[in-house]
Amino acid sequence: MNLFILKLGGSVLTDKDKEFSLRERLLRDLAGELSSLEEKFVLVHGGGSFGHPLASKYDISSGFREERQLVGFSKTREAMEKLNFRVVKALNDAGIPAISIQTSAFTVVEDGKIISMNIEILQKLLEIGIIPVLYGDSVVDIEKGMSILSGDQLLAEIAKKLDVSEVILGVDTDGVYTRDPKENEDAELIPKITPESWENIKNLIEFPTESDVTGGMKNKVEVLVNLAREGIESRVINATKGGNITKCRRRNKKVGTKISRE
Amino acid sequence: MNLFILKLGGSVLTDKDKEFSLRERLLRDLAGELSSLEEKFVLVHGGGSFGHPLASKYDISSGFREERQLVGFSKTREAMEKLNFRVVKALNDAGIPAISIQTSAFTVVEDGKIISMNIEILQKLLEIGIIPVLYGDSVVDIEKGMSILSGDQLLAEIAKKLDVSEVILGVDTDGVYTRDPKENEDAELIPKITPESWENIKNLIEFPTESDVTGGMKNKVEVLVNLAREGIESRVINATKGGNITKCRRRNKKVGTKISRE
Repeated sequence: MNLFILKLGGSVLTDKDKEFSLRERLLRDLAGELSSLEEKFVLVHGGGSFGHPLASKYDISSGFREERQLVGFSKTREAMEKLNFRVVKALNDAGIPAISIQTSAFTVVEDGKIISMNIEILQKLLEIGIIPVLYGDSVVDIEKGMSILSGDQLLAEIAKKLDVSEVILGVDTDGVYTRDPKENEDAELIPKITPESWENIKNLIEFPTESDVTGGMKNKVEVLVNLAREGIESRVINATKGGNITKCRRRNKKVGTKISRE
Repeated sequence: MNLFILKLGGSVLTDKDKEFSLRERLLRDLAGELSSLEEKFVLVHGGGSFGHPLASKYDISSGFREERQLVGFSKTREAMEKLNFRVVKALNDAGIPAISIQTSAFTVVEDGKIISMNIEILQKLLEIGIIPVLYGDSVVDIEKGMSILSGDQLLAEIAKKLDVSEVILGVDTDGVYTRDPKENEDAELIPKITPESWENIKNLIEFPTESDVTGGMKNKVEVLVNLAREGIESRVINATKGGNITKCRRRNKKVGTKISRE
C-alpha cells in the first residue's frame, strides 16, 4: 500500500502562546491539499495550546500521585478531543472520509511506552477507505497510573507496524536547522540526516529550548533516525507553507530535511 | 473489588421516537443517585435515538458493501460520541470522575464478535479512581469491514474479564415480563430467572417486537443468562425510576428481575 503517515505538530495547528487557539484557515488549507493528493494516510496530530498547558499544569507525564491529577487527566483528554474533533471536521469538510481514533482507548501504555495497540483497526479502516486520525494524549499507564503519549511516539509505533512508504513530520520551520532558525539568522537548514551523520551532529546542533511536555525537535529527530535505522524514510517539512506535503509526495528532493538510512 | 457494571439502555436515556432527544432531567437524577452510592462501576450505555436510526439507515450491522456506508459509519460514530459526551458530562457535574472510552478504538471485532479489548486500561482507570464510560457503537470489523457492537455484548465481555460483583441492566420497564407490559395489562413480572428456568420459559414469553438494531429484550436476557452460567449475577431493573439502582446495590430482593445461576 502506498501509505504515508503525516504528523502535524501542535505548533502548526495552534498558536502555542494562546490557549485553545486553532489556526482555522491553515487547517482548512491543509485539508484541501490532502484531499487533492487522493492518497491513503494516517494522520497524527499534536496538542499545542489545547493539550500542553493542561498536561503541564497537572504534571500528567510524571504519573499518578494525587487526587487533583484525576481532574487534570480528564481536562487534558477533553481538550485534546476538542482539537481532534476540529481536525476531523476540517478533513470531512474537504471531502476526506476521516474518523477519530481515541489514542487512550487504542493503546496500552506501560511506564510511558506503548506495549500494545489495536493495529488491526487501522489496517481495516484504511482498507475500506477511511482515514484514521490519532493524537498525542494523556493516557492510562498500567505502571504509573497515567502518562503522556506523544504524537511522535505514536507515529513511530504505527510506522513500524503498518507498511508505510514515508513519514512526514510537519512543523513550523523549514526542516531541521543547525541552530534555532527563529532566533538566529545564520542558522542553516540540514538537508539530509542519516543514522551515521546523526551521531556526529546531534550534540553540535543548538536545538531550540522549548517548553514542550513531549520533548521538542531533538526528540523528534531521534524518533525519525530510529525509524531510518529500520528502513523507514521520513522528511521534516514546514507544514505552515501550502504545497509542501504535495512536494514531499511527488518526491521533490528540495523540501525540508530528509532522514533516511543512507 | 466490589465493582459493578451498569448498562443504561438507549430507551432510558433517550426518547426513542424522536431523533437526538436526550432525557436530561432523568440523566441528571441518575448521575446524582450514582454519586451518592460512592462505589466503583463501569458504565455502558446504548444508542437510543442517537445511534439507532443512523445505524439502521446505513445498514452498518450487515458489514461494508458500498461507499455510502462510509458516511453512515462516520455519522453513527459522531452521534454516539455526542450522546456519550452528554452522559460523561452529567456524571462529572455530579462529582463523579468519569471519562469516555471510545468503544471502536478499544475493541477489535471480527464478524460482529469481540476478539480482543484493552481491558488493562479499564482495570487501571478503576484502580486510580476513574469511572470508565463505554457505549454501543459502530465499529471496524476486521472480517466484514464494519458492524455494530451492542452495549450488551460489550458489558458481557467486560463482566467476564473484570472481577465484577453484579451486572445491572437498566431498562424502561420494571424487569422481564411474561408479555410486553406496555401493551398488556395482564403481563406479569418474572422475579427470577436461572439458566434452567430460561430454557423452559424463553419460548413462552411474548417479547416486545421492537425495531432495535441490537436485538431487544430477548437478546439481553440471553446475554445475562450466559453470564449467570459463569457465576455472574445480574438484575434487570427500571432505571427510569429513581432509587432502583441504590436498592439493587443494597441487595433489596424486590427490585426487578434477578438472573443468577441458582
